[in-house]
Amino acid sequence: MPQTTPKGLNRLAFGGDYNPEQWPESVWQEDVRLMREAGVTLVSVGIFSWALLEPEPDRYDFGWLDRLLGLLHGHGIRVDLATPTVAPPAWFYRAHPDALPVSREGVRYSFGSRGAICHSSPAYREAAARITTELARRYGSHPALALWHVHNEYGVPVSACYCDGCAAHFRRWLAARHGSVDAVNEAWGTAFWGQRYTSYEQIDPPRLTPTAGNPAQLLDYRRFADATLRENFVSERDILHRLSPGVPVTTNFMTALSQCDSIDYWAWGREVDLVTNDHYLMTDGRRTHVNLAMAADLTRSVAGGAPWLLLEHSTSGVNWQPRNPAKRPGEMARNSLAHVARGSEGAMFFQWRQSRRGAEKFHSSMLPHGGTDTRVWREVVRLSADLDALAAVRGTRTVADVAMVWDWQSWWAQSLEWRPSEAHEARERADSFYESLYDRHLTVDFTHPEADLSAYPLVVVPALYLATEAAGRNLREYVESGGTLVVSYFSGIVDEHDAVHPGPYPGALRDVLGLTVEEWSPLLDGESVRIDGPGGASLTADVWTEFVVPRGAESVWTYADGPAAGGPAVTRHRLGRGTAWYVSTRLDAASLDTIAAAACEDAGIGARGALPRDVEVVHRCGDGGRYLFALNHSGQEAEVALTGSGTELLGGAAVNGKLTVPAGAVRVVRLDA
Amino acid sequence: MPQTTPKGLNRLAFGGDYNPEQWPESVWQEDVRLMREAGVTLVSVGIFSWALLEPEPDRYDFGWLDRLLGLLHGHGIRVDLATPTVAPPAWFYRAHPDALPVSREGVRYSFGSRGAICHSSPAYREAAARITTELARRYGSHPALALWHVHNEYGVPVSACYCDGCAAHFRRWLAARHGSVDAVNEAWGTAFWGQRYTSYEQIDPPRLTPTAGNPAQLLDYRRFADATLRENFVSERDILHRLSPGVPVTTNFMTALSQCDSIDYWAWGREVDLVTNDHYLMTDGRRTHVNLAMAADLTRSVAGGAPWLLLEHSTSGVNWQPRNPAKRPGEMARNSLAHVARGSEGAMFFQWRQSRRGAEKFHSSMLPHGGTDTRVWREVVRLSADLDALAAVRGTRTVADVAMVWDWQSWWAQSLEWRPSEAHEARERADSFYESLYDRHLTVDFTHPEADLSAYPLVVVPALYLATEAAGRNLREYVESGGTLVVSYFSGIVDEHDAVHPGPYPGALRDVLGLTVEEWSPLLDGESVRIDGPGGASLTADVWTEFVVPRGAESVWTYADGPAAGGPAVTRHRLGRGTAWYVSTRLDAASLDTIAAAACEDAGIGARGALPRDVEVVHRCGDGGRYLFALNHSGQEAEVALTGSGTELLGGAAVNGKLTVPAGAVRVVRLDA
Amino acid sequence: MPQTTPKGLNRLAFGGDYNPEQWPESVWQEDVRLMREAGVTLVSVGIFSWALLEPEPDRYDFGWLDRLLGLLHGHGIRVDLATPTVAPPAWFYRAHPDALPVSREGVRYSFGSRGAICHSSPAYREAAARITTELARRYGSHPALALWHVHNEYGVPVSACYCDGCAAHFRRWLAARHGSVDAVNEAWGTAFWGQRYTSYEQIDPPRLTPTAGNPAQLLDYRRFADATLRENFVSERDILHRLSPGVPVTTNFMTALSQCDSIDYWAWGREVDLVTNDHYLMTDGRRTHVNLAMAADLTRSVAGGAPWLLLEHSTSGVNWQPRNPAKRPGEMARNSLAHVARGSEGAMFFQWRQSRRGAEKFHSSMLPHGGTDTRVWREVVRLSADLDALAAVRGTRTVADVAMVWDWQSWWAQSLEWRPSEAHEARERADSFYESLYDRHLTVDFTHPEADLSAYPLVVVPALYLATEAAGRNLREYVESGGTLVVSYFSGIVDEHDAVHPGPYPGALRDVLGLTVEEWSPLLDGESVRIDGPGGASLTADVWTEFVVPRGAESVWTYADGPAAGGPAVTRHRLGRGTAWYVSTRLDAASLDTIAAAACEDAGIGARGALPRDVEVVHRCGDGGRYLFALNHSGQEAEVALTGSGTELLGGAAVNGKLTVPAGAVRVVRLDA
Repeated sequence: MPQTTPKGLNRLAFGGDYNPEQWPESVWQEDVRLMREAGVTLVSVGIFSWALLEPEPDRYDFGWLDRLLGLLHGHGIRVDLATPTVAPPAWFYRAHPDALPVSREGVRYSFGSRGAICHSSPAYREAAARITTELARRYGSHPALALWHVHNEYGVPVSACYCDGCAAHFRRWLAARHGSVDAVNEAWGTAFWGQRYTSYEQIDPPRLTPTAGNPAQLLDYRRFADATLRENFVSERDILHRLSPGVPVTTNFMTALSQCDSIDYWAWGREVDLVTNDHYLMTDGRRTHVNLAMAADLTRSVAGGAPWLLLEHSTSGVNWQPRNPAKRPGEMARNSLAHVARGSEGAMFFQWRQSRRGAEKFHSSMLPHGGTDTRVWREVVRLSADLDALAAVRGTRTVADVAMVWDWQSWWAQSLEWRPSEAHEARERADSFYESLYDRHLTVDFTHPEADLSAYPLVVVPALYLATEAAGRNLREYVESGGTLVVSYFSGIVDEHDAVHPGPYPGALRDVLGLTVEEWSPLLDGESVRIDGPGGASLTADVWTEFVVPRGAESVWTYADGPAAGGPAVTRHRLGRGTAWYVSTRLDAASLDTIAAAACEDAGIGARGALPRDVEVVHRCGDGGRYLFALNHSGQEAEVALTGSGTELLGGAAVNGKLTVPAGAVRVVRLDA
Repeated sequence: MPQTTPKGLNRLAFGGDYNPEQWPESVWQEDVRLMREAGVTLVSVGIFSWALLEPEPDRYDFGWLDRLLGLLHGHGIRVDLATPTVAPPAWFYRAHPDALPVSREGVRYSFGSRGAICHSSPAYREAAARITTELARRYGSHPALALWHVHNEYGVPVSACYCDGCAAHFRRWLAARHGSVDAVNEAWGTAFWGQRYTSYEQIDPPRLTPTAGNPAQLLDYRRFADATLRENFVSERDILHRLSPGVPVTTNFMTALSQCDSIDYWAWGREVDLVTNDHYLMTDGRRTHVNLAMAADLTRSVAGGAPWLLLEHSTSGVNWQPRNPAKRPGEMARNSLAHVARGSEGAMFFQWRQSRRGAEKFHSSMLPHGGTDTRVWREVVRLSADLDALAAVRGTRTVADVAMVWDWQSWWAQSLEWRPSEAHEARERADSFYESLYDRHLTVDFTHPEADLSAYPLVVVPALYLATEAAGRNLREYVESGGTLVVSYFSGIVDEHDAVHPGPYPGALRDVLGLTVEEWSPLLDGESVRIDGPGGASLTADVWTEFVVPRGAESVWTYADGPAAGGPAVTRHRLGRGTAWYVSTRLDAASLDTIAAAACEDAGIGARGALPRDVEVVHRCGDGGRYLFALNHSGQEAEVALTGSGTELLGGAAVNGKLTVPAGAVRVVRLDA
Repeated sequence: MPQTTPKGLNRLAFGGDYNPEQWPESVWQEDVRLMREAGVTLVSVGIFSWALLEPEPDRYDFGWLDRLLGLLHGHGIRVDLATPTVAPPAWFYRAHPDALPVSREGVRYSFGSRGAICHSSPAYREAAARITTELARRYGSHPALALWHVHNEYGVPVSACYCDGCAAHFRRWLAARHGSVDAVNEAWGTAFWGQRYTSYEQIDPPRLTPTAGNPAQLLDYRRFADATLRENFVSERDILHRLSPGVPVTTNFMTALSQCDSIDYWAWGREVDLVTNDHYLMTDGRRTHVNLAMAADLTRSVAGGAPWLLLEHSTSGVNWQPRNPAKRPGEMARNSLAHVARGSEGAMFFQWRQSRRGAEKFHSSMLPHGGTDTRVWREVVRLSADLDALAAVRGTRTVADVAMVWDWQSWWAQSLEWRPSEAHEARERADSFYESLYDRHLTVDFTHPEADLSAYPLVVVPALYLATEAAGRNLREYVESGGTLVVSYFSGIVDEHDAVHPGPYPGALRDVLGLTVEEWSPLLDGESVRIDGPGGASLTADVWTEFVVPRGAESVWTYADGPAAGGPAVTRHRLGRGTAWYVSTRLDAASLDTIAAAACEDAGIGARGALPRDVEVVHRCGDGGRYLFALNHSGQEAEVALTGSGTELLGGAAVNGKLTVPAGAVRVVRLDA
């Protein structure tokens, strides 16, 4: 069993990507001096250094890295050392042009940005194994080494390659997955539109087609692309495990649904020793702290509830969005501590020193262009002290209140072409349901649809278009055993091959929901419907309506107008010892609160005191104690009720019964036993 | 002279595409049982079955089709048997990768959707002829066979290929059309921008260019692409005529301008034995029944006024629009009977049983995923009974009131790059003029601009940018002989090579309209103008204005503001025994009604009683009697005046003098002699 | 020193592109007759005639051109003769398909529009030199020849090619520019993202990459593409100088920033004997006369202040915008004379006779489709007379009031990917600052950032993201010497390699502005901020805000809200004998007027009388006298104050003290000494 925490690190991790190759060595001395000033404990090194480490085939130059690791070690800074396999050198591509990936339209990408790799390329795989082996041999037992960082952000910016090499690799993958060409034909429904194959050699990646491609082929190709990346990760990981025993191996995820849609993190979470994550705020006008909380909850869930590590975020603005605002004063610390509250064992950044050159020179960093006489630097130093004060939370686990079902493969299927409405998006539903729970101050675990749900009083299913029979049974057993379930429309429709379950919709969920759906009738742009509910209440919905036929369920909310006027809009089904709700139309987060309140009542989940909106309270518990994190994202001072007494760690004050959190501030209370 | 009605079919056609290869044979028994229950009379079979019929080169497997046709025949269901040439098998493409089409940008499309065919490919042509021959030999005299269905929806989703094989074929086509390279240079105006050719070998398809390509080359390529498809249709048709005499041959058109823009249906109408059409509602918020009526009128016109057959439409929602609402109760029947009113000899659907797999599994069907306990199924069964009650209309012809000039080749020319305004679209003008006539309850025949117009009291020309000298003479003779003509702006501008007619605009129509146009001045986005007319009336227009110089015409409406303020906006020209109106700006359908009213008065067309908006009345007449179809698309009951008495066929009631049509309902009256 | 005015032309140039090859020779006689009627003095001939002049390799047909030049000469019309190198014949491309350019995505463009040339192609370069040599030999001393016109509008529609030939050429260019691969690595910052090169052979053009490419590589490629075009121009020019001494050589620029973004006209201005320009109104709803004035000022500045020539504009609407309105009555003359006011020695058009065929047949011309009985023709004839009346202005120079700094290379850098905000555009800032000066009735010279500024009391820097150290010193010395400077945000950030200047922003301009910028915080779409200033005034700004730290400057306007609330928004720095203003947010043109007024006061620039908005007054002075041009673009009559007396040249009236300009009219006064 490999170690699952950074080796030799006895504090919360604090630091960032460190790319000293961008600077003369004379700057390194200043770097380590300022790292000490800033309390840096861990840096990620070497992510893009292949061309420096192996300047020509099989000639290695480790001198500079020897010096660097020595310098860091000498200053007590631990190292997250990367295999540089995300950045094959220019000479490699000249020798192996086939290792550049090809788009769906057949364009071979060019060298000159990053991550342009065909992961099926045998030449790439060999070269990656070679450099990984060399690094592991040389540094596998280096005293500064805390963690191995394989590659970088698998899945972006190229999520799949469509070259002939991938075609061959896809055929092998299909043979292993399906067993025979006939099984592929069956799974893909090739009888439709006359697409029957009689040999694997006839099968290609789903390249550009003049109209909608075969959906099951497209779905399998997403699985294949994900599996191919995972093969390469596992290959490097196994080398590192063999040559550097005792040092945990990770690769940095991007669990935020807005930042990577090509990786099935449920599968990846099982392969890494320690889950690490990169997270960047999407500044599109929505509440960034809600999306941060969701990503952090997803990351923890992918880690099976164990502590994880935030490996990259930003001190202030980024550079790759259309418009990149700076963070407000205090926002960086609030972001960092929100991740810690939800399970991160530290807060790290891209990157230590802001680049003068290259594509990301306008990305903020710990040490900005403006130097140390800047707000950003002062906040970095302050955050370091705060993290030091929280060292005791290491190893404790975040406590969840409810669960949300999420499945990347279902998302992929839901995103295929020619669905009933392009305006229905699985991610939007997940965001909205999460936001409604966040606003009820509930901490959320995410679960795979086939995972054990028995620990949760309430399970929410915002968008589960693809649901296997097993998933359907799982949800039914959960409800029958006393659980409360809330399911959103267009769930349970297809099986793992994107084939519609036999019989009326929603095939996999008919029983648990106690209803069938005869048809859906998506609304046009600008259209909305009213739904009427208990006590004369009314809500407005859009995008989607359905003709629901109760078969055991009772209608709680009814369509007042629109295509399904008079029919059930939201239903409730008593089944066994539990209850299953169904929401057949698109409510926004605020309207969903009404349904969530009723479901919480069914689930016996009480209201969370009188917490104001945008005040976030999360608990971490474990052998190391019980900790309450209170983050005030609002502009007003807030009061948080405490059960009992404790010590506020960031200020050191004793608290009892209640906790005052100034506007924009964070407080962490170690609760007395 | 080949037969022009489905052989052996003595009722209106009712049924749909039947794709039993998507299901185990055990399901077929249920299918035919339910077909009988639903009164199905005709099914289309085999459209995508090539890979099953010829699983490897020159090895045929007809067993399943033998059994299927036997089963259908045994249940009295007649068969529209397809040549499967729209769906070459995967093995074919592996052997002939050049048969996949290439986009204008040079991307070769991949296998995996449908219709990805280079129609110039000799290998494809040979293979298509072979499978057609095999099918014709085996089933040419099968007792179930009613109709041959060649290919599927020629022109979509690939309207043209740009590969080297097409380049060679294009050069042959140019040689045949133009006779010499010099003639090509002259027709294309290659002196402009220095594009002169000195041999055919220098000429390519109009592939991607850095700025606007040669418009006449682009126009000729659209003609070439259409002609190439037609060559392939004719080749299959001739095989079928030879080997299966007495069975009519069709291919399913898509005449709705929203659904196919690449086919010159005037030319195709002359090649098929029976015109058949596929029609789908575009649910973009506009009045779908108006666009349906227009497509049906176009289809009948392409058939030269003869009865035709609706081969595909949908029972409820489709799956390929951005948002796909379900049809409202009764809407499917109203759609079906509207097609019958306008000449269809039945109503067929895509498809019989809803697919579980593939790209169209969310397309509605006769037998939905929900099975027979659904509104859709009940309405299907009911529609079948209605069609049975209308069997007597077979062979009668729809009676038109007025004509509208339409020409696909002019549309192609109008859609080329670098026109005075992108906001002017020929299709939009056709839709708006049609809608204004529909709202006057006039039934419209479409005509080619060079066709005989003498049967019509009123002819409307909504957009005829390309008008030959012959077309100009034709319209002039029509007016001189007493006709009333209404012409919209930017008509009569260029000849068949997209060359501007010599002299002032509108070259081909100056004489008949009695005016010249000095310049046009398109309006910017958001701009509009007021035009003032008789009796102090005012209308608002946008997109387009002109400087019209009357030379015989009188100004009836005048620009009150905008670039042409004070100048004529709508003119009227007395010529010979007739009248020609000209509308020089863009009026919407409601405003066009004012002009249409004046033109109708000139044409002696009286108002259609007091019919409310959205109540559609159409007549079919012939040896079999006179039938009045009244379709109430509105939400209120309507009363329709009858001249004399008759029998309402759907209910069996005698009617006299008037007919009550409930909201959403259809009534069909056999008028007494 | 080559001649810099059209040889033998003693009047203002009046005429246009003449493409007689589009017409039978019989039409030529009518052409020259009508040219005389219209007072045409100069025509541009042969721009697209290569295929006619060299119908097959090395066989030349000059007969028609001999006849044409003879005919023109016989009628006293002088000729601007083109090398036809923008239009290689079809046979050339068949022999050299590699001479067709390739897009960034790897698509090779096709023949069939115009300007599809890979300028690195050796075959193209040889062929171009050959035809240029032949033309120069044959017509170099032709008596009609006034000017050589090389190529056409370098830089559009293809600004760069990405083929393998260009890759090789790019490597040579890099070697010459940087000296070594290591220097390239340093300049491009290839340490970032692991892009280090170890040989030139590894370097490609910046083709399609999966995410942001290397910015310095992209910037160098724009320089390379521009330099390559200039190489080809210089090659042709040198042939012409050698074989046709005494005849000036030009190529037609497109200085309007809306019309060409790929040419560094500062460099090109030094290479031509006479600067000529093509200008077309962009009818996007903005004030077209302001953008015209800006383009004319840019053109004059590129010519170093010397007279230049408007070689193409339009008589009325064009055909290549989305919507192409006609010009209003009088607008063509006002446009033409506005160019003359700002330094043009004439007004020429595309084109003489409107084409019947090809991509630009709907582009207006001097002789429209409608012939001579048209408003356009009458205005052409009238304009000719007006220009005749202004012959004396030849050789005088336009008098500028202030300067604006502009640099195409900085624009290129600013337009690269991954900037702080996509909503900030250098061109928009230049347009807005120009408009604010225009509305203060100030005539603007543009200058390179390293050029001598001492002649100007006020210098405005609307967007100078890339500013070398030398540019920074230049601006500082200008202020220290008593100048007044206004700088907009995000200026002075990077050096010539797009590398951020060391230290706080704005590196190159910190000293002159007396401040640092700690961070910027771009605003989201729809957000705005208020800034408060002297006397309780408030303005609204959007897109961009900054955290400005004064270090010598005083804060004059302050952010009232938004991210930088309470901080400086607009500052003023007294330095030496001058003043430097800094505007840290985006104000629109009207709001900028407030800042401009304060800066003008610092600069001692008084208000321009009481001139109404849209009345433009410009002076030309020289040995030939002093001329005041007054153009009234408004709808009301305007009065312009005159210092002293003079003669109005278009009407011949004596004026004294004041000048009345009717709505839409132009008046030109020769001021008495």
